[in-house]
Amino acid sequence: MKHIAESTVRRLSLYLSFLETFESRGLQTISSDELAQQGGTTSAQVRKDLSFFGSFGKRGLGYSVPELSDRLRSILGLGREWRVIIVGAGKIGAALAQYRGFAQRGFRVIAVYDKNPALVGTPWDGHQVRDIAHLEADVASEPPDIAVLAVTSEGAQDVVDRLVAVGVKAMLNFAAVPLNVPADIALKTVNMAMELEGLSFALTNRELKADPTE
Amino acid sequence: MKHIAESTVRRLSLYLSFLETFESRGLQTISSDELAQQGGTTSAQVRKDLSFFGSFGKRGLGYSVPELSDRLRSILGLGREWRVIIVGAGKIGAALAQYRGFAQRGFRVIAVYDKNPALVGTPWDGHQVRDIAHLEADVASEPPDIAVLAVTSEGAQDVVDRLVAVGVKAMLNFAAVPLNVPADIALKTVNMAMELEGLSFALTNRELKADPTE
Repeated sequence: MKHIAESTVRRLSLYLSFLETFESRGLQTISSDELAQQGGTTSAQVRKDLSFFGSFGKRGLGYSVPELSDRLRSILGLGREWRVIIVGAGKIGAALAQYRGFAQRGFRVIAVYDKNPALVGTPWDGHQVRDIAHLEADVASEPPDIAVLAVTSEGAQDVVDRLVAVGVKAMLNFAAVPLNVPADIALKTVNMAMELEGLSFALTNRELKADPTE
Repeated sequence: MKHIAESTVRRLSLYLSFLETFESRGLQTISSDELAQQGGTTSAQVRKDLSFFGSFGKRGLGYSVPELSDRLRSILGLGREWRVIIVGAGKIGAALAQYRGFAQRGFRVIAVYDKNPALVGTPWDGHQVRDIAHLEADVASEPPDIAVLAVTSEGAQDVVDRLVAVGVKAMLNFAAVPLNVPADIALKTVNMAMELEGLSFALTNRELKADPTE
């Protein structure tokens, strides 16, 4: 199987979000030009991205919206349930769990952890916050697919090491520090600091026109 | 002035975060190799990135940590205050405002808006949630530098249009929809759906090994 770049996966996500809008309006076909325009890319790139996963579309007719949506959902691993634990019972974890797309995409929170005794045992969106001391035992009895790290920068690497040790293979990190994980772990970081600095850079250097396509 | 790609700006943010760790430990110099390793790139790329902004470092001696940090903070538009309004008084806005890096980088929340009558007037981290109906008048009397969009997908484009009309030039968007803005507006989107799909893709296609460097 060919190597797939992260930038390709991001475009597949973008294509799917547009296809779902088309689906909800009952539209049956979409051209690679339309997908390209929405995804900020070229129709040649759209065809190349999709060709990784087999042949889609008919020359001159475009792509079938329901067929391509289903195929992308399956490629992206949607349409099944993913068990998620959240480490850090603060506002970030709560915001994520209440994000509508979270449940829609099959991400189900099975437990929430914190180390702060003031938070342990308190109610949290249908759960009770558990002491992080239980992490290893809980994971052994009900292994999660994904861990969300909503902890402080200082504590993040320690939590990651514990999660890796018990076999968690995918993590979404909100801490603003680089984390070290073995090569077989999927780690995504949402770096708020970087987004903010991108804005302050743009405001400070307006004549530079940072190019979002690169 | 040369054109600067968004990927360069992101690496400058990464370099700065490592330099600040070095600074806090009292280290005086850093090599382009060390910066490259931390930034997931090559030392040639580090030198190229920094060369956009003048000459730094001495051959064989590396870069001065305090000097390069100061320079990067200034390039990234940090070290001054940015006035921020938050539209949408839900958990995402609250999580962002309480994110430590937000205040540290000079981002100061001046107002929070919502359209939900149940939220308008309620206390919110030192503010009172204001009715979105006041947006235009407030912005005219105290123009913000940046607007954070923490509203639902359905309402996002309407809010963006109103912000553009009153002259807001930079926005951080948490809604999971593509937004249309004029070319002179700096818009950053934190797309949770895309991060989640990146993880489910990685878990589903483990043999593909999505490459984070591309």
